[in-house]
Amino acid sequence: MAQSKKDKETLEKLKEVGKEIYRQISSGESPAYELPVRTLNNIYFDKKSFTIKLGDKTSQRQFLNVAHTRKFMQTMLVASEIKKIINEEATVSIRDLYYALKHTIEGTQENTFEDQSESDPIIEDIEASMNLLREELHLAASSKGVIVGNMKIKDGKDTIDLTKMGSGGWGVPSNVEPDKIEIKDLDAEFVLFIEKDAVWKRFNEDKFWQQNKCILITGRGQPSRAERRLVQRINKEYKLPVYALMDADPWGMYIYSVIKQGSISLSYSEEKLATPDTKYIGLTVRDVETFKIPKEVTIKLNKLDEKRLNEMKGYDWFKKKEWQEEFRLMKEKAVKLELEALSKKGIRFITETYLPQKIKSNDFLP
Amino acid sequence: MAQSKKDKETLEKLKEVGKEIYRQISSGESPAYELPVRTLNNIYFDKKSFTIKLGDKTSQRQFLNVAHTRKFMQTMLVASEIKKIINEEATVSIRDLYYALKHTIEGTQENTFEDQSESDPIIEDIEASMNLLREELHLAASSKGVIVGNMKIKDGKDTIDLTKMGSGGWGVPSNVEPDKIEIKDLDAEFVLFIEKDAVWKRFNEDKFWQQNKCILITGRGQPSRAERRLVQRINKEYKLPVYALMDADPWGMYIYSVIKQGSISLSYSEEKLATPDTKYIGLTVRDVETFKIPKEVTIKLNKLDEKRLNEMKGYDWFKKKEWQEEFRLMKEKAVKLELEALSKKGIRFITETYLPQKIKSNDFLP
Repeated sequence: MAQSKKDKETLEKLKEVGKEIYRQISSGESPAYELPVRTLNNIYFDKKSFTIKLGDKTSQRQFLNVAHTRKFMQTMLVASEIKKIINEEATVSIRDLYYALKHTIEGTQENTFEDQSESDPIIEDIEASMNLLREELHLAASSKGVIVGNMKIKDGKDTIDLTKMGSGGWGVPSNVEPDKIEIKDLDAEFVLFIEKDAVWKRFNEDKFWQQNKCILITGRGQPSRAERRLVQRINKEYKLPVYALMDADPWGMYIYSVIKQGSISLSYSEEKLATPDTKYIGLTVRDVETFKIPKEVTIKLNKLDEKRLNEMKGYDWFKKKEWQEEFRLMKEKAVKLELEALSKKGIRFITETYLPQKIKSNDFLP
Repeated sequence: MAQSKKDKETLEKLKEVGKEIYRQISSGESPAYELPVRTLNNIYFDKKSFTIKLGDKTSQRQFLNVAHTRKFMQTMLVASEIKKIINEEATVSIRDLYYALKHTIEGTQENTFEDQSESDPIIEDIEASMNLLREELHLAASSKGVIVGNMKIKDGKDTIDLTKMGSGGWGVPSNVEPDKIEIKDLDAEFVLFIEKDAVWKRFNEDKFWQQNKCILITGRGQPSRAERRLVQRINKEYKLPVYALMDADPWGMYIYSVIKQGSISLSYSEEKLATPDTKYIGLTVRDVETFKIPKEVTIKLNKLDEKRLNEMKGYDWFKKKEWQEEFRLMKEKAVKLELEALSKKGIRFITETYLPQKIKSNDFLP
């Protein structure tokens, strides 16, 4: 069994938790453990690292407190199952884990878990308290993105050349941690993180990554953890800038913010997922004028867009004047713009004119 | 310009349509063309080929009939844009196409298209009347699936070895037509079409395709056209059986039926998309007993499931006695079962016990 160093460390951490509980029981203490508080009042935007972070408030979970007993039991079950999974060198989905642990406790009518909404927060507790990603706990999150470009991936015995994927791409796996996946022979000048799969396909068909020496990735809408983690690794390991290409609407801009500094719900993991170096290359409402995009292909903002826009204006990470100006303009013009709308200017306008011009003129939002 | 034979044929077909309209105009006739009726009363289940098909009713679209004029204009626009796209050797999404053609007609207040729901049916009209897939018209449908296994894909200059994808897979592109993609060196005994990505990942992690000589594909829920077309091609070109592995619920069973004989909405293309040879390997409600799956991990049918189950019982393609018996049992037991529930029996139960036993004992539903 060739367990990675990381796995051995994780197993050690898990064993220590178990040993401590065992010690407490043996010495007649009430079994308890400490875990970080994951509610809003312990989550903040760290302006220095430009990342959403978890504060240092903690709470105790006590077995002999009836309000905690069920969750205590569930935590022990999940931790022990994770140990088993790592030992078996498998990775399972969080849904698998839920099913594997669900049973009626002998001699009672009580189930260990009623549904997955009970086991998921326990997993998050363990991630946060052990400061480990769920991938490091051998739990697979979903991943749906694809990547191509001037680099290779070493994954187990396979070396995957991302310049030779044809019109498809490499489907990003759930776990892209360094002990699983090595990034090799990277020869690129930037990463282009594209919101939409259809647009990614256009860039890939035009072999944009070849002429422009870059990496093309899409998360097909809101990216999964794996796509974000992989981009963070490329950014950190190769000092590559990351450009995000999104629809000019509140949704696209929000996705950008998640790529850049993370989300509140994953605050405890954002240090390993967020890429604060990311820049917003487009689309912007200002592009409509700059690139003379016909009015017919813009879309009127609806009520929901306006509401979302107002919320986003208040977010700490959108306080920079460039973003406030873009939001103001969007509200004033009351329009949004999809990436596909650039097709009005020609099939290859986006790859041959729009993108190169934006990069050349350093026309980014921060 | 290296246009494929297929593209030349498609362009020829498009030009003929244009020439005929031109001839009509020149000779003072009312411009018109014929197209197949795509309403329910012209769609049927062909028991011989076991596929959903379009009947032979047709209708005329006349320029000088005010009820048809707008659609006539739109059809000409779409056909002419498709000709341009093929000539430029590009592929665009149907959303791109909509934007590219949207404009206010000179001297009027009228837009060519108000939104995409106007251009999509026109594309379907052209597909149906020319008997071409939209991929052959260089229009990209979305695709989200991944594939691995004992085969190679030749795509342009790249040869992609699907045994060397690491823990990821090859992201299936939109267009998998023979003039774009060649299936090579296939050394497998069956195709396993898995409903869920998380389950596909389990099979891929266990290198199931290696030990069991097979191809593993998932469409991540309801598969896109590309995944279905690729599986049809493998089935036809290599005479490989296709097994579908789905949740034991009305939704999973419906997805199976789409893979096998197609859907009503794509009836005009099912000849090229459906794989009537597909067999249903599981899950079934009967499996609960056969494999002694604990009651706690089954889920109670809800009202919506029951309604869907009753509808499905009436479908022509589910009339076989084995399916009627399965539906009866599901109703009687009032339970459904997810693939992940097998994790209750062990992390690798599904790959090491369940699947091999089902195949060995030929325990399929037709």
